[in-house]
Amino acid sequence: MADLRVRATVCRRSWLEHSRVFEKVGLIAKLGDARAAAALSRLVAHLGARGIDVMVDKVSVDGTPEHAADTVDRATLATQCEAAIILGGDGTFLNAARSLAGSGIRLLGINLGRLGFLTDIVPEDLETTIDAVLDGNHVEEERFLLSAKVIRDGACELKVSAFNDVVAHAWRIARLLEFETYVDDHLVNRQRADGIIVSTPTGSTAYSLSSGGPILHPAIDGLVLVPVCPHTLTTRPLVVQADSLIEIVILGERQPESQLTCDGQTTMKLMGGDRIKICKQSETVKLIHPNSYDFYSTLRTKLYWGRDHR
Amino acid sequence: MADLRVRATVCRRSWLEHSRVFEKVGLIAKLGDARAAAALSRLVAHLGARGIDVMVDKVSVDGTPEHAADTVDRATLATQCEAAIILGGDGTFLNAARSLAGSGIRLLGINLGRLGFLTDIVPEDLETTIDAVLDGNHVEEERFLLSAKVIRDGACELKVSAFNDVVAHAWRIARLLEFETYVDDHLVNRQRADGIIVSTPTGSTAYSLSSGGPILHPAIDGLVLVPVCPHTLTTRPLVVQADSLIEIVILGERQPESQLTCDGQTTMKLMGGDRIKICKQSETVKLIHPNSYDFYSTLRTKLYWGRDHR
Amino acid sequence: MADLRVRATVCRRSWLEHSRVFEKVGLIAKLGDARAAAALSRLVAHLGARGIDVMVDKVSVDGTPEHAADTVDRATLATQCEAAIILGGDGTFLNAARSLAGSGIRLLGINLGRLGFLTDIVPEDLETTIDAVLDGNHVEEERFLLSAKVIRDGACELKVSAFNDVVAHAWRIARLLEFETYVDDHLVNRQRADGIIVSTPTGSTAYSLSSGGPILHPAIDGLVLVPVCPHTLTTRPLVVQADSLIEIVILGERQPESQLTCDGQTTMKLMGGDRIKICKQSETVKLIHPNSYDFYSTLRTKLYWGRDHR
Amino acid sequence: MADLRVRATVCRRSWLEHSRVFEKVGLIAKLGDARAAAALSRLVAHLGARGIDVMVDKVSVDGTPEHAADTVDRATLATQCEAAIILGGDGTFLNAARSLAGSGIRLLGINLGRLGFLTDIVPEDLETTIDAVLDGNHVEEERFLLSAKVIRDGACELKVSAFNDVVAHAWRIARLLEFETYVDDHLVNRQRADGIIVSTPTGSTAYSLSSGGPILHPAIDGLVLVPVCPHTLTTRPLVVQADSLIEIVILGERQPESQLTCDGQTTMKLMGGDRIKICKQSETVKLIHPNSYDFYSTLRTKLYWGRDHR
Repeated sequence: MADLRVRATVCRRSWLEHSRVFEKVGLIAKLGDARAAAALSRLVAHLGARGIDVMVDKVSVDGTPEHAADTVDRATLATQCEAAIILGGDGTFLNAARSLAGSGIRLLGINLGRLGFLTDIVPEDLETTIDAVLDGNHVEEERFLLSAKVIRDGACELKVSAFNDVVAHAWRIARLLEFETYVDDHLVNRQRADGIIVSTPTGSTAYSLSSGGPILHPAIDGLVLVPVCPHTLTTRPLVVQADSLIEIVILGERQPESQLTCDGQTTMKLMGGDRIKICKQSETVKLIHPNSYDFYSTLRTKLYWGRDHR
Repeated sequence: MADLRVRATVCRRSWLEHSRVFEKVGLIAKLGDARAAAALSRLVAHLGARGIDVMVDKVSVDGTPEHAADTVDRATLATQCEAAIILGGDGTFLNAARSLAGSGIRLLGINLGRLGFLTDIVPEDLETTIDAVLDGNHVEEERFLLSAKVIRDGACELKVSAFNDVVAHAWRIARLLEFETYVDDHLVNRQRADGIIVSTPTGSTAYSLSSGGPILHPAIDGLVLVPVCPHTLTTRPLVVQADSLIEIVILGERQPESQLTCDGQTTMKLMGGDRIKICKQSETVKLIHPNSYDFYSTLRTKLYWGRDHR
Repeated sequence: MADLRVRATVCRRSWLEHSRVFEKVGLIAKLGDARAAAALSRLVAHLGARGIDVMVDKVSVDGTPEHAADTVDRATLATQCEAAIILGGDGTFLNAARSLAGSGIRLLGINLGRLGFLTDIVPEDLETTIDAVLDGNHVEEERFLLSAKVIRDGACELKVSAFNDVVAHAWRIARLLEFETYVDDHLVNRQRADGIIVSTPTGSTAYSLSSGGPILHPAIDGLVLVPVCPHTLTTRPLVVQADSLIEIVILGERQPESQLTCDGQTTMKLMGGDRIKICKQSETVKLIHPNSYDFYSTLRTKLYWGRDHR
Repeated sequence: MADLRVRATVCRRSWLEHSRVFEKVGLIAKLGDARAAAALSRLVAHLGARGIDVMVDKVSVDGTPEHAADTVDRATLATQCEAAIILGGDGTFLNAARSLAGSGIRLLGINLGRLGFLTDIVPEDLETTIDAVLDGNHVEEERFLLSAKVIRDGACELKVSAFNDVVAHAWRIARLLEFETYVDDHLVNRQRADGIIVSTPTGSTAYSLSSGGPILHPAIDGLVLVPVCPHTLTTRPLVVQADSLIEIVILGERQPESQLTCDGQTTMKLMGGDRIKICKQSETVKLIHPNSYDFYSTLRTKLYWGRDHR
């Protein structure tokens, strides 16, 4: 059990690690959002004045950019920048995380609406907070993504990645999805439900939570499998090791009545016989937060813990 | 993330590890249970005939033993035997696990009533199954326990261990327990509830499950914190790393209206101001199972998965 | 409160009422089901031999009927018969209930697969049980249906009825349905969820139960509103009086991403601005059961109550 | 079904009924609460100045009263006053409701802390609101209570009433309560759980809600039976008609390990063989609210509906 202790120490240290100074920064903003565009211009000017190299992600900008920085594609941003600042909501962040995984770039989320689980900086003290973070006053953590493949008739039809969750579900509520779940080639069960969610710790505060799943601390090296409206009333959320191989086998006739959704994006229609194979992706993402970051504080704010009116 | 992969491989191998042959075996039986006493006598005779050294746990036997084996105390059994066979239900097994943790002895559970999560051998083919297991045809896994301390006025009032769960709860349902929960010195929340369960993966299929907690695969290196009937409706089960330090601080006046329960045994009355500190115990227990053991198969049987009448 | 007591007596008596003898009986069977077709032929012969007038529902029969009875349309069956025997599962029964509501005809369900909540006679002693029921040895109860209308731009786009439930839900799980719920013109709440179920007591053991709703005894004069995977974690199932006017207002842009499902049949795509008005339908259905019928016994069998393996 | 419609109209009218002017008013305050005592003095002066006859409940006052009104016992208050104003929290209100049931007196709740479900007036505009209510600008509704009897060895050991709920529960969490539930002499099930709650609609937003029960609109003529941490995972809350006879039979040996709690007050220790009989109490209570009262608005405020941070 020695190895477990080592790992825990490593993980815990990552919550405190800091001191790196960033000099080349990419900016990614939610397209078509006026507040994001305004914050983007503000940041380009501010960071430029501080002597930081700034690049702006191409898909963040519609038409002619209103700012002075270079506009680059995501791949260039990934290789040239040390950190990426993401301006938007959790959706914008999920997209950035999937596309930047494995690049080593550090991600920092700025929320322009309500506080997000991933975008945990609010825009009031934008410049001050970002200056402190880029100067090395931050904590860093590593998070993993999922890789999902759909195998049909022996061929791989699709390969996608997900930061929050992979969901197989019936799109006609009238027809329950019937499926088998395997973990590391062991049958877990055969069930009928609206669907099933395979969620990372990151996704455990998103759709999984609405479906009755537990909250997984970000440092937990596990996945949670959560049935959606299961017909079998004894089915419960199941937490398994993150490097398990999950397999969902869609049963029933060959009619496209169900679909695969990753991070809330519908990816493809499913058919009876499809096998969805889900495992931890080898490329991870690194998040940075201001030194004041506290996972439980975010939970308390977003879930109204501690403010008890009843 | 390299360390994570190493650990996973280690854990997974443990589910398959086997080949050890046992020649000195202890027997522990549920006291005052006629079936357990009968199975004990049967096993003493059978194992003796096979040339295995057999010792019987003293508290398993009332008055004069009806069998020929040496009767020893638990500490002697722990140091002299290579494996212990436990005859009873999950309660008997939990007791044995707490007292034998850290000794290196392997535990094998025989269920005399209905199939248990820990006592996964049923008595039909007792001798055949045990012969195979002792001959080396088994899988082995390591499980951890919790250590709980109650600190009152700066002094440690109690130190106990638990294999399933540590529960702080109001014993008068009329008065909600008010408490704060900390993980690694971070406040999680302050809440009012009937109580809170801190459960190991082993305990996740016991009381925690009845209170809405998820099932944790035994190899998950995590704990689950589950509120019991929480007043705050947004509170949810929370899975944290197993080597976290959990602290429950009992709030309210100094009236003994709540208690601490470990593995279903009431240990002491709690008072306002008490701090319950819970962490992973350094001594672990090693379980052995027949080669046919399958965690998910046990779940399917006990939770009626796959038999769907609705 | 006097009126409440009167009502309860009336409702309770209906669970015991019997003594009516039926001489004109309609038969409705699941189309394309070999067992249903065989049972249909058996019943035509058996009832004919007993001198009972038998009519067979037209949509129960594919091509040339193999039996000697008249084949009639549902409307004729409703007006000419005193009782209808339904051979199939709960789906066939739901369909029959919707089409025969208000006709005064008594419905008797025969289950050909596993025991249903509505089709509570199993085929072992088919003839004996049916003879006893038709001779007057039965209990009778009255159940209500829901009427749902969709109002778009001030016009009624659809009017349908439902025996189990009316469900408004997003068909792309990626996009939460945002909607407001009103009861008798009072705003209940505005929420985002996968959807919302409005269920009768009859439907409370179907989809509503999978989504966390309570079981309503069939005699409860209430509806239950159950959110499906609600984003707001404090939302709970809500039981309101059956003659309330429920209104679900779909919010958001005018994109057809959600749909209305009644008794598991998709009826139409919904758009932002649509108002779904749901109320008790004035026409009811009358069910008959063998004298041995016991609602709780069905629950115990179908939900495995009393067989507790854990 | 005609009777159902009549009843609904009656119930719904009660939510709007008003116009009665009150001239003799009793005051009940939480004992030992400084804010309650201050509000009491304020109200005695204010109502006296308006020419209203005021009586103060004896148990509301400690030692010499600081106000000019007559101090009377609860029974005198019940017969002499037309309305009672209750100053405190929901606990004070529950107590008043039990003691004043059947007297015909109207109850009005003033909350001195956070908004309650029963005490729905906040003290800001105390005098203005109360003047309006007493002048006839109020809505009135009737609510029912439960009567619970414990039968031991054929004799009635206890008879109590409850406005929120009757709860039978194990007081040592270590030992599950084993019991059978009957509704109108029909066995519902035999189960093991921490306990069972039988709740009125009034109590459905209290302990029952924390245990997973649904919210019942106050006009629902039903009870909800909610298991607490049930061992059988398929057990669900069950809503039955309010005039059902509920019977809980405690199983197991004759050891006092469980207790009966009514409205959060422990009433007696239970023993194996005890039969708890619960039914609607014939005496009801009448609540009055300001015209602005809206049940759903209270729910939205207290359950944070509509303020969605996630």
